Amino acid sequence: MDNNTNNYLADFPALNQQVNDERLAYLDNAATVQRPRQVIKALTDFYEQDNANVHRGVHTLAERATKDYEEARKKVQQFINAQSSDEIIFTKGCTDGLNLVVSTYGEQNIQSGDEIVISIMEHHSNLIPWQQLAKRKNAVLKYIELTPDGELDLADARNKITDKTKIVAVAHASNVLGTVTPLKELATIAHQHGAIIVGDGAQAVPHMAVDVTDLDVDFYAFSGHKMMSPMGIGVLYGKASLLREMPPYQFGGEMINDVHRDQSTWADIPFKFEAGTQNIAGAVGLGAAIDYLNNIGMDNVQKKEQELVDYVLPQLIAIPDVQVYGPQSPAKHTGVIAFNINGLHPHDVATALDMDGVAVRAGHHCAQPLMEDLGVTATARASFYFYNTKNDADQLIKAIKETKEFFNIGTI
Amino acid sequence: MDNNTNNYLADFPALNQQVNDERLAYLDNAATVQRPRQVIKALTDFYEQDNANVHRGVHTLAERATKDYEEARKKVQQFINAQSSDEIIFTKGCTDGLNLVVSTYGEQNIQSGDEIVISIMEHHSNLIPWQQLAKRKNAVLKYIELTPDGELDLADARNKITDKTKIVAVAHASNVLGTVTPLKELATIAHQHGAIIVGDGAQAVPHMAVDVTDLDVDFYAFSGHKMMSPMGIGVLYGKASLLREMPPYQFGGEMINDVHRDQSTWADIPFKFEAGTQNIAGAVGLGAAIDYLNNIGMDNVQKKEQELVDYVLPQLIAIPDVQVYGPQSPAKHTGVIAFNINGLHPHDVATALDMDGVAVRAGHHCAQPLMEDLGVTATARASFYFYNTKNDADQLIKAIKETKEFFNIGTI
Repeated sequence: MDNNTNNYLADFPALNQQVNDERLAYLDNAATVQRPRQVIKALTDFYEQDNANVHRGVHTLAERATKDYEEARKKVQQFINAQSSDEIIFTKGCTDGLNLVVSTYGEQNIQSGDEIVISIMEHHSNLIPWQQLAKRKNAVLKYIELTPDGELDLADARNKITDKTKIVAVAHASNVLGTVTPLKELATIAHQHGAIIVGDGAQAVPHMAVDVTDLDVDFYAFSGHKMMSPMGIGVLYGKASLLREMPPYQFGGEMINDVHRDQSTWADIPFKFEAGTQNIAGAVGLGAAIDYLNNIGMDNVQKKEQELVDYVLPQLIAIPDVQVYGPQSPAKHTGVIAFNINGLHPHDVATALDMDGVAVRAGHHCAQPLMEDLGVTATARASFYFYNTKNDADQLIKAIKETKEFFNIGTI
Repeated sequence: MDNNTNNYLADFPALNQQVNDERLAYLDNAATVQRPRQVIKALTDFYEQDNANVHRGVHTLAERATKDYEEARKKVQQFINAQSSDEIIFTKGCTDGLNLVVSTYGEQNIQSGDEIVISIMEHHSNLIPWQQLAKRKNAVLKYIELTPDGELDLADARNKITDKTKIVAVAHASNVLGTVTPLKELATIAHQHGAIIVGDGAQAVPHMAVDVTDLDVDFYAFSGHKMMSPMGIGVLYGKASLLREMPPYQFGGEMINDVHRDQSTWADIPFKFEAGTQNIAGAVGLGAAIDYLNNIGMDNVQKKEQELVDYVLPQLIAIPDVQVYGPQSPAKHTGVIAFNINGLHPHDVATALDMDGVAVRAGHHCAQPLMEDLGVTATARASFYFYNTKNDADQLIKAIKETKEFFNIGTI
């Protein structure tokens, strides 16, 4: 990668602006990423040309919109290598998809005494739904712990997952620790015990090639807005054999076969799980985002991010009084970097960095049990995407040093 | 209104196109409406300038996005005259909002033997969720029937709603019959019996001034995409006192107060019901749509549509072998006009009209029990919005006559 330029930057209008009279270094990509002109254009084109409701219409615009929508489903299928586009359910986002699994498969299959295994690094969206299901069903919720290095402890997973386990649900990549979990190995272990496995792909799919067939996951959820699609669209992948046995999640138009006064029957998958008018334009935009990513190649996306981590992580760790969470080795770290400056509240750190044009997030990152485990209430978090540059990394390091100086923290 | 021009048409790119070499007459507005440049620009501006995740961020873009999002909530509150913006919950759409009420308030409050009263004209989204809740709870689902004229029978409503009734759920405007229901009177009756009332505003809010405080409804749901917002955004209004007592619908980020390994507590309304990253750009676009409607004035929107109905309905009814459903008097009919041509399947009618550039929908309109009641399996449906013109109406009438001629149906 060239030192200071990036071929992609010009595609992203939001990245080419100043905040607080400084060049914007947008490092809040784990929260949401920016959109390239190509995605914005796909969205605009849809609304200006093809906009209509799908499936039930026989007029030209409705046919075009239906074609656009189903082509987007096909793109998603191919992007994650699902066996059939019937296994791709469009949702509102990752949280919506995970709640769908819990409220249908979970509600149907978990009984008193059953065990559900998640990890302590889960985002609230893959934690609270299971926690509340366990409460409702009098089931047991178990947590896979971390290694001292901040990775998922596979040995602990082998102990926690037993024949009592019915569901294992784990993030594919942490939104705090910057680690990738051994999801494929966890799937094997789960299946050996007759359990199913649910992957939370929110922090994985935008950043690396994901193959749900190779992973052999039973369900896998992710959000569009973290991979450049419009907001309000996400995907739940599920194995067809499981999806077909599940009850619907929401009831309404599009998901039915026959409706009578006192009873109804349901459409086949994927429509059974898509009640009401879906975010058709959002799906079309997600398709355009996938085109953009495929054009780069997911291996190149991952390589670009790894180069940035190789560059910035050692510099960050080397700053006195800066604490980086998760693995300290760049090779084990994704572009999500949580850190604190000793003696400063992360909100003050984020506010100070913002004055220097650097956008990072501060808080518990929707992972309070993990925060408790790390012995903190909050951290700052810089998160990179392929469009970020060494300029952004340099600006972050400089701003952290200036923040320390401003607040008179330790050695500069 | 001028005969053949419309001040608004120029704002809608999708309306200025030809289909099948004919001028497009877009009359599928009950399914989804078209978007004006102003809404598309608001969406594009958000993605190009302010795009970030909300609430948890302290950097400039996150603060701007949060301000945009909460201003949109305030606009919705004022648009429907809710008492507080805390009572405005952003959803995926009307179906999502209705399912939320059923899965929280309904699940919490309905017990065996309780009665739920809906009308026979309900859209599946305000029918199946209640039907399935009644099944789960061993409760009784009752239907308010129609008058011979195709309006909601208020006398029947007075019989069906009793002290056993816990919930009344009724569409504010029918998506088939083109009628407006006496929602305010139904609210009074429901409250006299200690029941709550849920309004389905999908076909009302885009077309008339709606005042939830005056209606005294307890919940009221509608979709953005039928009122010119981006897809994937909707609103559930609920009285604060009820919302506060309800359990959450989905679990995840944003909706929590404290999360521990074995227990969690919830945020206050409206956030308790907004788990995960919401469709922030969609909400901003909804705000822009509301600005556009306010600029016209909802009374003018309704007046413009009424003028179109006054013009087209008598002409349609006068065509031999055309059957119009719902009230035959224009004064009692909204811009939603369901019809059939004797001897022709509505899908063939819609396909033939499409050849003449006229976009109408054909099917059961997600109202199968109503279709059964009307003695049909499907109808064609032309539905008007304020931007439609007498040109569109003329094109519809002409195309219907040509379709009859083509299929050699009765007298032309």
